[in-house]
Amino acid sequence: MPPIPLPIPTSLSDLLLAMDLIGVFVFGLSGGTLAVRKNLDLFGVMVLSLAAALAGGVFRDLLIGAAPPASLRDDRYLLAALAAGFAAFLFHRPINRLGKPVMVLDAAGLGLFTVAGCSKALAYGLTPLPAALLGVMTACGGGAMRDLLVAEVPRVLREEIYAMASLLGAAVVIAGQHLGLPPVPVAVVGAAAVFALRVVSVLRGWSAPRAPGS
Amino acid sequence: MPPIPLPIPTSLSDLLLAMDLIGVFVFGLSGGTLAVRKNLDLFGVMVLSLAAALAGGVFRDLLIGAAPPASLRDDRYLLAALAAGFAAFLFHRPINRLGKPVMVLDAAGLGLFTVAGCSKALAYGLTPLPAALLGVMTACGGGAMRDLLVAEVPRVLREEIYAMASLLGAAVVIAGQHLGLPPVPVAVVGAAAVFALRVVSVLRGWSAPRAPGS
Amino acid sequence: MPPIPLPIPTSLSDLLLAMDLIGVFVFGLSGGTLAVRKNLDLFGVMVLSLAAALAGGVFRDLLIGAAPPASLRDDRYLLAALAAGFAAFLFHRPINRLGKPVMVLDAAGLGLFTVAGCSKALAYGLTPLPAALLGVMTACGGGAMRDLLVAEVPRVLREEIYAMASLLGAAVVIAGQHLGLPPVPVAVVGAAAVFALRVVSVLRGWSAPRAPGS
Repeated sequence: MPPIPLPIPTSLSDLLLAMDLIGVFVFGLSGGTLAVRKNLDLFGVMVLSLAAALAGGVFRDLLIGAAPPASLRDDRYLLAALAAGFAAFLFHRPINRLGKPVMVLDAAGLGLFTVAGCSKALAYGLTPLPAALLGVMTACGGGAMRDLLVAEVPRVLREEIYAMASLLGAAVVIAGQHLGLPPVPVAVVGAAAVFALRVVSVLRGWSAPRAPGS
Repeated sequence: MPPIPLPIPTSLSDLLLAMDLIGVFVFGLSGGTLAVRKNLDLFGVMVLSLAAALAGGVFRDLLIGAAPPASLRDDRYLLAALAAGFAAFLFHRPINRLGKPVMVLDAAGLGLFTVAGCSKALAYGLTPLPAALLGVMTACGGGAMRDLLVAEVPRVLREEIYAMASLLGAAVVIAGQHLGLPPVPVAVVGAAAVFALRVVSVLRGWSAPRAPGS
Repeated sequence: MPPIPLPIPTSLSDLLLAMDLIGVFVFGLSGGTLAVRKNLDLFGVMVLSLAAALAGGVFRDLLIGAAPPASLRDDRYLLAALAAGFAAFLFHRPINRLGKPVMVLDAAGLGLFTVAGCSKALAYGLTPLPAALLGVMTACGGGAMRDLLVAEVPRVLREEIYAMASLLGAAVVIAGQHLGLPPVPVAVVGAAAVFALRVVSVLRGWSAPRAPGS
């Protein structure tokens, strides 16, 4: 299995891992609290937490031919998602009250997952268009899987600026690579763009456009 | 990654690609127009268009061990599916009125995808039974994924002669290979059989059988 | 593709295959009878039978990088699942009346699939935590896919002791490997533990816990 040739120094890599695990935990909370609202049992809470946190990256890794996926090779991803599930199981009420902080962390995870997913797809040799789509899938696929598991139309397909923000970040990564810019600052700018667009769109109540006359 | 050893001359290969892309576009329209009916936003329309057009082939490629799937290696597939999504977003009303022409093109796509999927599975060394199932999955999996994404029971599981037509085409390909017949005419006959059975069954209102006493 | 290095003598391997195929058949019945209840057509009955019987193992094999999955390499798996589909199509009424025998066979399949899935994941080099999860996914993933295909929240996420029993068996396999115990008796004990917990929990009406205050 090819290692991912990301030209990132070790201390930055540690920082990225920490941010990645925070993203996993926050995405996991979104799955776990939804499972509690849907009256699932402890196992269901854990499954929705795992799905929300990790399914996007799993889909990406299967599609680029990188099985087993990263989250099955480093126990910390599974542990972060399971910890989120337990937290949601025990503390769903206070977590649900923390609407705005959770939204802000989720926006950070959205940016991080987009940039990481898009960069990994490029590193595996995909061209820009599929790499951008895989970046969005990495960031949005877990939430979609979470909703499908409770037999609901994924929120990301019908509400708010979420995938569009992710797409902006993927575009930044693609443009940066195309222009030969150094990958780390490009990744930071890309993730920050996702974060900013997502947070502003929630605060302003923006939505993605619907079909004319629909 | 092994190339697909299809013994097809270049000009025919161009023709096949063109037909394949038409199939992708028409399948994409079915996803995009359903998304508009379900009041999804622009991103949701694009996702349903991509899913309906490409998910069947993606499932096949993952199952035969051919990741990344063909649709992520040649941008024309993604572009055809996205073009269908935009067309559905902007022109859903006239497209929905074109019931019969769209059905006829969809039947052509059904035949083409079945034959291509079954042939690719055989080329990757699968035995006839799984190859036939993968042919049907290539042709019907996208429509099933499209319906699942809007939380509906896939139409292909409950209505009309659709998968049965696809299965007929897969059987033709398998029989042709078993008898050592040349692959190109067999593929044409297989796709034509799917097309004919599908179109006739729609015009006559045929349905697949239901369980006795159900 | 690496063969699975299970240190199992041939006659035992025959016994395991027979038990595996019985498990596939019984799981397939659960899919086929659900499809009949949901008024799907013959093709839908077959798809739900295949999904319930085989999807768990397919997900496992895709995730560990063992494509094509085992059920596409040995026709007997597909044939057992399709036979279950035909049986459900023709005899759904008597099968539905056989509640308790079917439950007992299903519990045996649950144990067998858990142990086989977990052992295969370990044989492919995964660490204990993901291997345990893949064991549970092997045993429970087919039933979840079956329910998702008819747009229902998977029963395994909301009812009864099912996944928890599977998790117990995975824990036995992991513990046995950690302690260096011989794999065959450990597998037998693991499968028996799943079976016993599942059957007792149904007879006693036990359920997995729900979130406090949910």
